[in-house]
Amino acid sequence: MVSGKQPKVADSDKLETMRHSASHVLAEAVKSIFPDARFGIGPATRDGFYYDFELPRSLTTDDLPLIEAKMKEIVAANLPFSREEVPKEEARALFSAQPYKLELIEEIPDEKVGLYRQGEFLDLCRGPHVSATGEIKAFKLVSIAGAYWRGDEHRPMLQRVYGVAFDTKEALEEHLTRLDEAAKRDHRKLGRELDLFSIHEEAGPGLVHWHPRGSVIRRVIEDFWKDEHIKRGYDLIYTPHIAKLNLWQTSGHWDFYRENMYSPMDVDGQEYVIKPMNCLGHILIYKTSQRSYRELPLRYAELGTVYRYERSGVLHGLSRVRGFTQDDAHIFCRFDQLEEEVVGVLELTRFMMDTFGFTNHKVLLSTRPEKYAGALDVWEEATEILRKALESSGIAYEVDPGEGVFYGPKIDTKIEDALGRDWQGPTVQVDFNLPQRFDVNYIGEDGKEHMVAMVHRTVLGSMERFLASLVEHYGGAFPVWLAPVQAMVIPVADRHLDYARKLVAELKADGVRVEVDGRSERVNLKIRQAQLNKIPYMLVVGDREVEESSVSVRLRTGEQLAAQSLDSFKQGVKQAMASRTQELKL
Amino acid sequence: MVSGKQPKVADSDKLETMRHSASHVLAEAVKSIFPDARFGIGPATRDGFYYDFELPRSLTTDDLPLIEAKMKEIVAANLPFSREEVPKEEARALFSAQPYKLELIEEIPDEKVGLYRQGEFLDLCRGPHVSATGEIKAFKLVSIAGAYWRGDEHRPMLQRVYGVAFDTKEALEEHLTRLDEAAKRDHRKLGRELDLFSIHEEAGPGLVHWHPRGSVIRRVIEDFWKDEHIKRGYDLIYTPHIAKLNLWQTSGHWDFYRENMYSPMDVDGQEYVIKPMNCLGHILIYKTSQRSYRELPLRYAELGTVYRYERSGVLHGLSRVRGFTQDDAHIFCRFDQLEEEVVGVLELTRFMMDTFGFTNHKVLLSTRPEKYAGALDVWEEATEILRKALESSGIAYEVDPGEGVFYGPKIDTKIEDALGRDWQGPTVQVDFNLPQRFDVNYIGEDGKEHMVAMVHRTVLGSMERFLASLVEHYGGAFPVWLAPVQAMVIPVADRHLDYARKLVAELKADGVRVEVDGRSERVNLKIRQAQLNKIPYMLVVGDREVEESSVSVRLRTGEQLAAQSLDSFKQGVKQAMASRTQELKL
Repeated sequence: MVSGKQPKVADSDKLETMRHSASHVLAEAVKSIFPDARFGIGPATRDGFYYDFELPRSLTTDDLPLIEAKMKEIVAANLPFSREEVPKEEARALFSAQPYKLELIEEIPDEKVGLYRQGEFLDLCRGPHVSATGEIKAFKLVSIAGAYWRGDEHRPMLQRVYGVAFDTKEALEEHLTRLDEAAKRDHRKLGRELDLFSIHEEAGPGLVHWHPRGSVIRRVIEDFWKDEHIKRGYDLIYTPHIAKLNLWQTSGHWDFYRENMYSPMDVDGQEYVIKPMNCLGHILIYKTSQRSYRELPLRYAELGTVYRYERSGVLHGLSRVRGFTQDDAHIFCRFDQLEEEVVGVLELTRFMMDTFGFTNHKVLLSTRPEKYAGALDVWEEATEILRKALESSGIAYEVDPGEGVFYGPKIDTKIEDALGRDWQGPTVQVDFNLPQRFDVNYIGEDGKEHMVAMVHRTVLGSMERFLASLVEHYGGAFPVWLAPVQAMVIPVADRHLDYARKLVAELKADGVRVEVDGRSERVNLKIRQAQLNKIPYMLVVGDREVEESSVSVRLRTGEQLAAQSLDSFKQGVKQAMASRTQELKL
Repeated sequence: MVSGKQPKVADSDKLETMRHSASHVLAEAVKSIFPDARFGIGPATRDGFYYDFELPRSLTTDDLPLIEAKMKEIVAANLPFSREEVPKEEARALFSAQPYKLELIEEIPDEKVGLYRQGEFLDLCRGPHVSATGEIKAFKLVSIAGAYWRGDEHRPMLQRVYGVAFDTKEALEEHLTRLDEAAKRDHRKLGRELDLFSIHEEAGPGLVHWHPRGSVIRRVIEDFWKDEHIKRGYDLIYTPHIAKLNLWQTSGHWDFYRENMYSPMDVDGQEYVIKPMNCLGHILIYKTSQRSYRELPLRYAELGTVYRYERSGVLHGLSRVRGFTQDDAHIFCRFDQLEEEVVGVLELTRFMMDTFGFTNHKVLLSTRPEKYAGALDVWEEATEILRKALESSGIAYEVDPGEGVFYGPKIDTKIEDALGRDWQGPTVQVDFNLPQRFDVNYIGEDGKEHMVAMVHRTVLGSMERFLASLVEHYGGAFPVWLAPVQAMVIPVADRHLDYARKLVAELKADGVRVEVDGRSERVNLKIRQAQLNKIPYMLVVGDREVEESSVSVRLRTGEQLAAQSLDSFKQGVKQAMASRTQELKL
C-alpha cells in the first residue's frame, strides 16, 4: 500500500533504464560468486531493481556487501552493453543450463529472441539498457526476500535481492535516509513498542487483535467518524458478518470476486459465507419498505468488519490484512441528486484528511474499463457527474482512463504521508450493477418505479490500514486527541504519590487519559520511558508542586513549560482534544 | 427466554394436575370432532397445557371456539377420571390405531402400563389427575403451532393446540390480559412498527439487520456501556471474528460446544471457524507479554459479535438469534483479588439494571455440576468466594445446586420485566479450564509463575436480546435518553415551516435527536402518528409560537405543557439525557 516517492516523469525513463541495467550487473556479480546460479527475472522497480536467483545456499545480509563490491568492480570496468538477436533454437542452446530462462523463451511469440551481454554475462532481455556499466551511478543493495517463481506458490521459491539506484549520490543518500526513517516509523515496529496491536500465528495470519492502547485510538476515531456522519445526514446501521451464499451469487460477487472470498460453511444444509463487503446488508435494509423520491437520499453508514482472502505472501502488518473494519457507507439517491452527494463525500473526505494532518492528496477519476456492466450512456452521464462534482469542489484531479470498477466510475484519493509515500485513501464509486441485480428502486414523483443511483464510499479506508498510516505519519507521536495516554504523572519520591493519585483522579474525572508512574525509579528514567512511549505530557510532581498545588509540565519534545495550576493544564488538554489540533502545546 | 409468571409453589402441584387433566379433556374434544385423530403427548405447561395431534386437516384459530365448546360440555358432564393398569400386550391392542402411543408403550420399562379414562377417552398416562372433569375450572384455548413428533425435525410435524388454565376466572382473566399486553409489546411487532430491525430469509434466519432507529438505541447503550467500563478500570479491545480451528480444539470448545459452532472454512489448507465466544482472542492479547502480579487485575472488555448455531425452530426475533453482540469482558486476576472483582461486577450489574429500570432481580449461585474440570478444593474455594462476594454486596440469592458450568461456578441474574416475565440477564462465571489449557499465568511476588483466576462476565447479555427486553419492558416508549427520535416538530401550516426548520437546526446542534413533520397533513394526524411512534415530545408550532419564539410541548402521554422558550425545552431534554431518567417530564 505504501511505496516510495515517484521520480519526476521526465527523468523516469532514463532512471528506469539505468536501474534495469543495474539488475544485470547484480546478476553478473552473483554469477561470479556462484557460477552455478540459475537466473529468474531482474526488472527495474520504483526505486531501483531486483533479481531472482536459485542458489546453492541461502543468502544472508552479510553477503550483500560482497556482492555490492563485485558490482562496483563491474561498473568501474565500464563494460559496454551489447544487443543481439538470435533464433529461438540458438537461444535454447545458449540457456540450456537455465531452466527459468528456457521457460521464458518458450513464451516469446517471435521467432527471434533479444539478448543483452555485458562482460561475462549474457541475459535474455528486450532492453533497453545504458550503453556501458559505467553509466550506472549511485546504487546500494538493501535486502533479500523469498519470491516464488512467477509468483506461484506451487513453483520453486527463489531468492530475490533488492537494490536501490539513483542518478546522484545525493539522491541515493536522501532515499536511504528516508528508508531509515521509514524503518523507524514502521507501524509493525511501533505497534509492538507502543503496545497497539498484535497478530497471532495461532489465530491466523492477517487477523488483527487490537490491544487496549490501539483500541483507545480506534474508539476516538470511530466516535469522531460517527458524530461527523450523523451531522452530515448519515444514518448508522449494523449488519451481520455472515449471509447465505445465494445472496452473493445474486450480487455477482461469487462470480467476479470469489478468489477473495472464504469458503462457504454449512448451516442446515445451506451454504453461508463470511462477508467480504457490507453492501448487501445495506440493500436489504433499504428494501424493507417501498421508498418514495421524497425519502431520498438515504445514507447508510457502518463500521463494518469484512473478511477477504489475501495470499499469505502479501500480508503486511495492519496495511494488508485478511479481516478489516471499513468505514463504509452506501448512498441511495436519485440521479438528479448524485452530483450533490458526490460533492458531499468529497467535502467530508477533505475534512477528514485535514483533521488527521494529511495535507497532500492526489485525486484520480477512473473511467469506464473495457469490461463493464450497465448502459454506455448511463456510464457517460455518471462519469460526467463525477467530473462536475470534482470541478465544483475545486479539486485538481487526473483522469485514470479505464481504471473504473466494472460496475461504475470512481474517484480515488491517494494520500501522501510525512515521508512522501502514497497510500490508497478514500474512494467514492458509483454502482450500476447492484441496484439492477437487487431491483433497488423508489417511487418517483410520476408514481412509477425508478432505479436508484447507488454510491459506495469510504473516507478512511479501513480502521486497520488507517491506523498503520497514522502510526507511520506521526512516527507514533500521536496528537493529543488521539494519544492513548495523554499524560503521565511522575512523582519525584514516594511522599508525592498521594498528590500524584489525586491529580490522576481529577484529570480522569474530566475525561483526560492519564496514568501515574508510581515505581521507585529515578525521575529521569521515568521521563525517558514516557518519552519513548510518546506520551504528550509528563507531569513531574515534587515538594514544590505539592506545596503550591501546581503541576510542572514537560512535553514529549523535551520542552519544559512553566509551573501552572491543575485547572489551567486541564483546560489546555481539553482544548487540544476538542480542537483536534496537530500541534503539541498548552 | 421470556415466559409466564410462576404460580406460588404451594399451589403449583394442584394447578399442574388440573392443567394436565385439561389436556385430556382437550384430546377427548378433538376426538369427538376428528374420530380418526392420532394422538401424541399432552402435558401441563407453566400456564396451562397442550396436546399434539395428527389430523386429517390443518386447524385454524376458527376451530378453537368449537373445540373449546366441546371441552366445556365434557367439564359440565363432570366425568370421573379413572386409572387402570394393564399388561403391555393389552395396551398394544388398545392403542393399535395410535402409532405414536405404540412408540411410547415400547419405551416403558415396566411390564404394566398405566392408563387413564374419562368418558369416551382413554389415554396412556402416569397421572395424577383430578377426580372428575368438573374440577377443571377456568380455561381457554389460545393458539395452534406445528411441533415435530419428539422435537425431531426428521419425524412428522404434528399440530399442537395450546390452552391456559387457572383455578379462578379472575386468575384466567388476569393472565389473558397479560398475554394481550405481551402481544402488544412483542418486540417483533414493535420492532417492525418502530422500524428498529429486520431479519431476512435471503440473508439467513437469526441474523439481525439493525435499522437506523434501532442503531441509535444501540449506539447510545454502547457508548454508555463503554464509558462506564472505562470508569471502572476496564480496557476496551477488539478481536477478529474468525480464528483457526486449532485454537478451539485447544480450548475444548470443539469437543464440548461443537453443536453450537458453524462448520469450518478452508484458508490455505487450514480450517478456520467463526467465533462462538470472545474468550480466546482476549487470552491471546493477555499473553502478548509476561504479566507481573503488579499488573493485575487486567479487565478486557469487548462488544464482541459471536455466531452460534441454534435450530431454526427455536429462533425468536431478537431474543433467540444466530449472531449476537455480547457485552463481554474477561477479568484476569490473582486468586486473592477474585472476591473484590466479583463484587465489582455485581455492583456494575446492579447499576446497569437500575439505569434501565429493571428493578426486580433474582440472583442464583450455581455450584459444581457432576462433570467438572479443575481440582475439587479450588472449586470449593471459588464457590466460597462467590458466596462471600454476594454476601458482602448485600444481595439476596438462591443456590442452584449443580448448575455451574463444567469449568467453574457462576452467579446468574434473572431480570423481571414490566410484565412480570423473567429473562436471562447478567452472568459472572469463574473459569478454571481455559487458564490451564492456554497456560495463562503471571509472575507472583515470589518470582514464580502462577495461574490466573479468569472471570467471564456480561452485564447486559447481548445487544440483541437486551433490545428485545427493553422494547417489551417499555412497550416501545423508550425513555428520552434512549428514544431514537426524541422530538417531532409539527408546523401547523406551511408558513410555519421555516420556524420549524430553525428549531430543528438549533436542537440538532445541541445533540437533540429531532425531526420535522413537514407534510401538508392535519396537525391532529401528525400528532397521532408521532404518538404511535412513541416519540417523547411533540413541538407544535403555529402563529403564536413563531411570534413569541416559543415552543408548545405535548408529551406522548397526551399531556400538554405550558408554552416555553426553546432554551428551556433544550435544557429539559439535555437534563433528561444526562440523568438517564425513566420519567417523561421536562
